[in-house]
Amino acid sequence: MPGAAKLAGALQQELKPDTVRVVPIGGVGEIGKNCTVVEFGDAAVIIDCGLTFPDAEHLGVDLILPDFAYLRQIQHKLRAVLLTHGHEDHIGALPFALRDFPLPLYGTALTLGLVQVKLDEARLVDGQEFHVVEAGDVVEIGPFRCEFFHMCHSIPDATGIAVHTPIGTIVHTGDFKLDYTPVDGRPPDVQTLGRLGRDGVLLLMADSTYADRPGYTPSEQVVAETFDQIFAEAPGRIIVATFSSLVSRAQQVFDAAVAYGRKVALVGRSMERVHRVAADLGYVRVPDGLIVAAEELDDFRAEDIAIVCTGSQGEPRSALVRMANRDHRNIDIAPDDTIIVSAAAIPGNEAKVNHTIDRLAHLGATVYYEQLRPVHVSGHASQEELKLVLTTLRPRFFMPVHGEFRHLVEHRRLAESVGLPRKNILMAENGAVIDVTRDRAAITGSVEAGMVFVDGLGVGDVGETVLRDRRHLAEDGVVVVVAAVDHHTGKSVGTPEIISRGFVYAPESEDLLERAREHVRQTIDRGDHPDPEVDYLQGKICSSLGRHLFQKTRRRPVILSIVTEV
Amino acid sequence: MPGAAKLAGALQQELKPDTVRVVPIGGVGEIGKNCTVVEFGDAAVIIDCGLTFPDAEHLGVDLILPDFAYLRQIQHKLRAVLLTHGHEDHIGALPFALRDFPLPLYGTALTLGLVQVKLDEARLVDGQEFHVVEAGDVVEIGPFRCEFFHMCHSIPDATGIAVHTPIGTIVHTGDFKLDYTPVDGRPPDVQTLGRLGRDGVLLLMADSTYADRPGYTPSEQVVAETFDQIFAEAPGRIIVATFSSLVSRAQQVFDAAVAYGRKVALVGRSMERVHRVAADLGYVRVPDGLIVAAEELDDFRAEDIAIVCTGSQGEPRSALVRMANRDHRNIDIAPDDTIIVSAAAIPGNEAKVNHTIDRLAHLGATVYYEQLRPVHVSGHASQEELKLVLTTLRPRFFMPVHGEFRHLVEHRRLAESVGLPRKNILMAENGAVIDVTRDRAAITGSVEAGMVFVDGLGVGDVGETVLRDRRHLAEDGVVVVVAAVDHHTGKSVGTPEIISRGFVYAPESEDLLERAREHVRQTIDRGDHPDPEVDYLQGKICSSLGRHLFQKTRRRPVILSIVTEV
Repeated sequence: MPGAAKLAGALQQELKPDTVRVVPIGGVGEIGKNCTVVEFGDAAVIIDCGLTFPDAEHLGVDLILPDFAYLRQIQHKLRAVLLTHGHEDHIGALPFALRDFPLPLYGTALTLGLVQVKLDEARLVDGQEFHVVEAGDVVEIGPFRCEFFHMCHSIPDATGIAVHTPIGTIVHTGDFKLDYTPVDGRPPDVQTLGRLGRDGVLLLMADSTYADRPGYTPSEQVVAETFDQIFAEAPGRIIVATFSSLVSRAQQVFDAAVAYGRKVALVGRSMERVHRVAADLGYVRVPDGLIVAAEELDDFRAEDIAIVCTGSQGEPRSALVRMANRDHRNIDIAPDDTIIVSAAAIPGNEAKVNHTIDRLAHLGATVYYEQLRPVHVSGHASQEELKLVLTTLRPRFFMPVHGEFRHLVEHRRLAESVGLPRKNILMAENGAVIDVTRDRAAITGSVEAGMVFVDGLGVGDVGETVLRDRRHLAEDGVVVVVAAVDHHTGKSVGTPEIISRGFVYAPESEDLLERAREHVRQTIDRGDHPDPEVDYLQGKICSSLGRHLFQKTRRRPVILSIVTEV
Repeated sequence: MPGAAKLAGALQQELKPDTVRVVPIGGVGEIGKNCTVVEFGDAAVIIDCGLTFPDAEHLGVDLILPDFAYLRQIQHKLRAVLLTHGHEDHIGALPFALRDFPLPLYGTALTLGLVQVKLDEARLVDGQEFHVVEAGDVVEIGPFRCEFFHMCHSIPDATGIAVHTPIGTIVHTGDFKLDYTPVDGRPPDVQTLGRLGRDGVLLLMADSTYADRPGYTPSEQVVAETFDQIFAEAPGRIIVATFSSLVSRAQQVFDAAVAYGRKVALVGRSMERVHRVAADLGYVRVPDGLIVAAEELDDFRAEDIAIVCTGSQGEPRSALVRMANRDHRNIDIAPDDTIIVSAAAIPGNEAKVNHTIDRLAHLGATVYYEQLRPVHVSGHASQEELKLVLTTLRPRFFMPVHGEFRHLVEHRRLAESVGLPRKNILMAENGAVIDVTRDRAAITGSVEAGMVFVDGLGVGDVGETVLRDRRHLAEDGVVVVVAAVDHHTGKSVGTPEIISRGFVYAPESEDLLERAREHVRQTIDRGDHPDPEVDYLQGKICSSLGRHLFQKTRRRPVILSIVTEV
């Protein structure tokens, strides 16, 4: 697949001393693989380095990374990666990036704890420089004074970052909502937002995920209240499925379990792993003896147990889906089980989530999900919160980030509604090069910033061509023709072989396949010159057989033809 | 694919004279392909005959039909098909069913008008018996008195059906909500519900689609108000995408267009077709001169135009998606266009809908969708409405239908909450055989009632085996190996050929493929007996090469191996 970034000529010049350059290589026009470069003089820092999970288009792809071509190009300038919080779409690409660009990492303890586990698994942790910061800390990195400030999100220890540069302050909110009653009791640091705004913000980049939702996003407190009601009523086990990274949701289960005298088991590999990090670092309040192993569950009565597990997105090999399929090692769903799906389905996962709920309901369990009860709230700020941040920070220039294009458009509308002139709002795409001076911000060019697919061991070797073939194969299957021709006469020798997969049910389609064989034989024998090129014959068989099969079936399988001369 | 239905022995007996048999062969545990058989003595009627659209699992499948095996088995009893309304999931399978079972059709004028178009296209309309009914009509069909009563849904002329049998009344609500201010001014016939309830309902089958939504579904009136606001403000063209079958939504656009002095064009094949039927039959109020052809749009100023089009689900070849891709014959999106996506995304379509909105926003248009403004309401009743119907009809027995399993479970809960004992509630699956007497209703057996896939011209020839192959092909592609062996020595002759699609990007994987060829050669040459069976060798190459490629790539392509003896 294409490799080197093509940088417009102008961009290869040194940066002017009055200019900060901001290059989002991921995270605008999408909710995923966040990665933004901030450059000044001969120094650059990266804010976040996340990945995206493939959707239905990306057949067989495991993960999607930002394209690091631009990082490679400015490698000599790179000083550090600053991390806002520990979610996959902000830290997930680090194991791939750090292999090429060994850089120190800055983030809060939980964020770096989660990164460490990742790097451990990738055997990259040796020699890695970790700099743990606390909200309020300012670290000097080259010409940048990087100030981390506390924000609330669906993971504890989330921060925004103000990068103070010699020409002004760049603020990145990270992912946030303004929750004044968060699970960990630490509300967002609106005071610091106020100070930053008063001192002057040159450029704001803010989370747009929920920019199309009117009003305010409810506090996590709402979920706590629902949990309390459900725990009060549930006759047997309570099983809560959520994102493993939603540490505060697990905390809410712990709190309810303590209140109602239940033990808690954590089930699912990523759930156990994240909890271990969060607990070791003191980010969850867990009384001694509360947590039990999944293997010990049989020692307790059903009404004394709560389980927190993975599978809220209907992921095929997750704990909840295994339970729904009666395929879980430790847990058989029983009719007095109460199951809470404490998450929203990510667009594209709805059908899988619904199927999982249906199968659980089939097993007789009571299932609560978002439509029925408020068992989940988002971690992203809605319109009124976004307006508060825009009004408080009063940035000179504004770039909505972390959202698909329609969210960025709505965020722009909100910014205009609180007085920002449209010309000061930057609607960037991934790879946009934004040059900011004290009184001007503009997109001055672009760098390569597409998607890099990880499929098995391959990073970047699967691209559009391969995906197009997979889509075609998925639609109507494949038909393989193997034929032999006499290299003197150009006539077919023996009967061509035809095998197919995913095209028709072969045992019931003998007739069709027999006629296809005959069609191929005739196609060869009708050839007009005695010494046909094998390539030519193969192409002719593909197109002619393709037409023949389409006429008979209205399907267009991939046709592969191999002709040998004998 | 498996053909004949397997009917439990007991079911082959004649029905007892005190028993009505109800067999849903589609529509329970799913929102789609509704089809229910009601039998008494030697007569049977079918209520609805719909289809389902494939989801992401059903690669390459075009449509999904109910399995008609049971209809075939009781063909001698079948007297008629009764239709509740004209949506695809209630009438879409008729062209397939009527080919095998020519039966008279009963339904309201709009419903039968839409059916007629379908049968016309399938060249089945000649000799078809249509019986147009009006809400309030009672038709006698064998031992059944079938009473159609008016209900509100997102298409005009929707009905419920009460089938009065000698042992009691079976009520099917059809799809409905209780909209007291519907677009066509005809509220649901709650008086008839009251009479039916007072006279006694033996079995109720009711729409469960929205059984998990608390409260009431808003009236269509809400959409009219939103349209009014948007029409008052829009600076240029207004483009409304919705379901073609949502006739009343198109009416709302017509009404707003009349109020604000705009012309309306209908764009998209199915939109034009449905509108023609609805207009011909008088189901839409359209002043002369309001409707213009898409080709005439250039004759008007942008602010004088509204367009109603297909594409609200992000369907690849629909009008709205073509506009979003700048690929529409007549319409180029401009920055002052206002686009309304007046539909909810059906689960599984969310990503496609979002991408379409994003692309339209990219072109500068203002896009309103469900999250932003109330531009759509559902046509299905929420919990309070369902309770009203249950309370009014007070059925002896209740079977929730038209919902996935979780919806049926919630509908059962609602029925219990208004006093129905759980033992009188039937949780059926497709194919369940329900025998009802005056004082007993029970599932007494089951018949085959799976999905029949339509793919191209094939009906039923694609089944799980083919789909499994397509899924496997979609995941990691296909590798084809063609090798020749000397039939005396069992050693390979020449170099095996390998071609692949969707596995790796071949031009950059020469090394991998070269090594794979060598691996195949060695696999053959290591064979221990000189005269190996070709089948054995082919199997051995598949498994050995599969392991080899997995080790190198962590991918598992479909491997097809063809060995010829020379």
